[in-house]
Amino acid sequence: MSLIIGIDPGSRLTGYGIIEHEGSKLRFVDAGTIRTETSEMPERLKRIFAGVDRIVKFHGPTEAAVEQVFMAQNPDSALKLGQARGAAIAALTNLDLKVAEYTARQIKQSVVGYGAADKEQVQMMVMKLLNLSIKPQQDAADALAAAICHAHASGSMSKLAVLNALGGMARGRSRVSTRRR
Amino acid sequence: MSLIIGIDPGSRLTGYGIIEHEGSKLRFVDAGTIRTETSEMPERLKRIFAGVDRIVKFHGPTEAAVEQVFMAQNPDSALKLGQARGAAIAALTNLDLKVAEYTARQIKQSVVGYGAADKEQVQMMVMKLLNLSIKPQQDAADALAAAICHAHASGSMSKLAVLNALGGMARGRSRVSTRRR
Repeated sequence: MSLIIGIDPGSRLTGYGIIEHEGSKLRFVDAGTIRTETSEMPERLKRIFAGVDRIVKFHGPTEAAVEQVFMAQNPDSALKLGQARGAAIAALTNLDLKVAEYTARQIKQSVVGYGAADKEQVQMMVMKLLNLSIKPQQDAADALAAAICHAHASGSMSKLAVLNALGGMARGRSRVSTRRR
Repeated sequence: MSLIIGIDPGSRLTGYGIIEHEGSKLRFVDAGTIRTETSEMPERLKRIFAGVDRIVKFHGPTEAAVEQVFMAQNPDSALKLGQARGAAIAALTNLDLKVAEYTARQIKQSVVGYGAADKEQVQMMVMKLLNLSIKPQQDAADALAAAICHAHASGSMSKLAVLNALGGMARGRSRVSTRRR
């Protein structure tokens, strides 16, 4: 059994999501956002660090996943996003978590089965795979998606799991079966 | 008396410098660099965070200064620099240090007396003001410059101090006299 934390860092909102992963099963544990809109940047970074630190200490995840950023945004927003990522990743690595990074395309491919899926599709598939009855906030959904991608990448789940879930086989604790080899 | 830490974050090299500031006097305490060239980004951020954390815990500075970045660099380097800044500032704020940010222009104006001074001039003036016999590494010098700028900005030192130092009045513990009001 592994407990995976996914983080979607942002200078105004940082999403987090925790899932449990055992064999072919995924289970939702926690998700939410760390809000930092109203403060100056050093204070925002303090809150992001403290928020991630608190969540990791509370749940004790064993693995971490963060979306890797490749973008054509302007340098100013890249710098802001970079700082938020830096504070979030420092909080994870400071607690000796190894951080896996996945591109947005890898995450979408893994969660939706389609690398160019939109935000809405990711949200819907996260709900489906984790058997959630309430739609998570977008940054929280993205964080959960990163965690799910990491669970899939760690090997015991195949893309077939996604197809099975799409076919409505997920029930209860989101038992998504996987192909045996 | 205040102990000021200046940080010059970078994804490969993060400079730090600590100075003591009492009235019109500045005294060099420590300076160096945290080297992170050879690792993956999450590991780099861990080292930056741990390095700054260790230095702050060792010296116990009461104030912190970091160069603020406004730049026309490309998004990729902005993102890398942003992450390094995020990890460094999170380490400072995590230990309840208030972080003052100064633009490169403000720092140069304060340390050299000329906002468009080059790196070499900053290094030379840092040596002069702190009575150093060895030229500090460039990132360490930039970190010390940020700390000196903060000392000047905190009020008890005037630009005259810089002029006096330039005139060769600094001696021993870098006693740079300031204009009394």
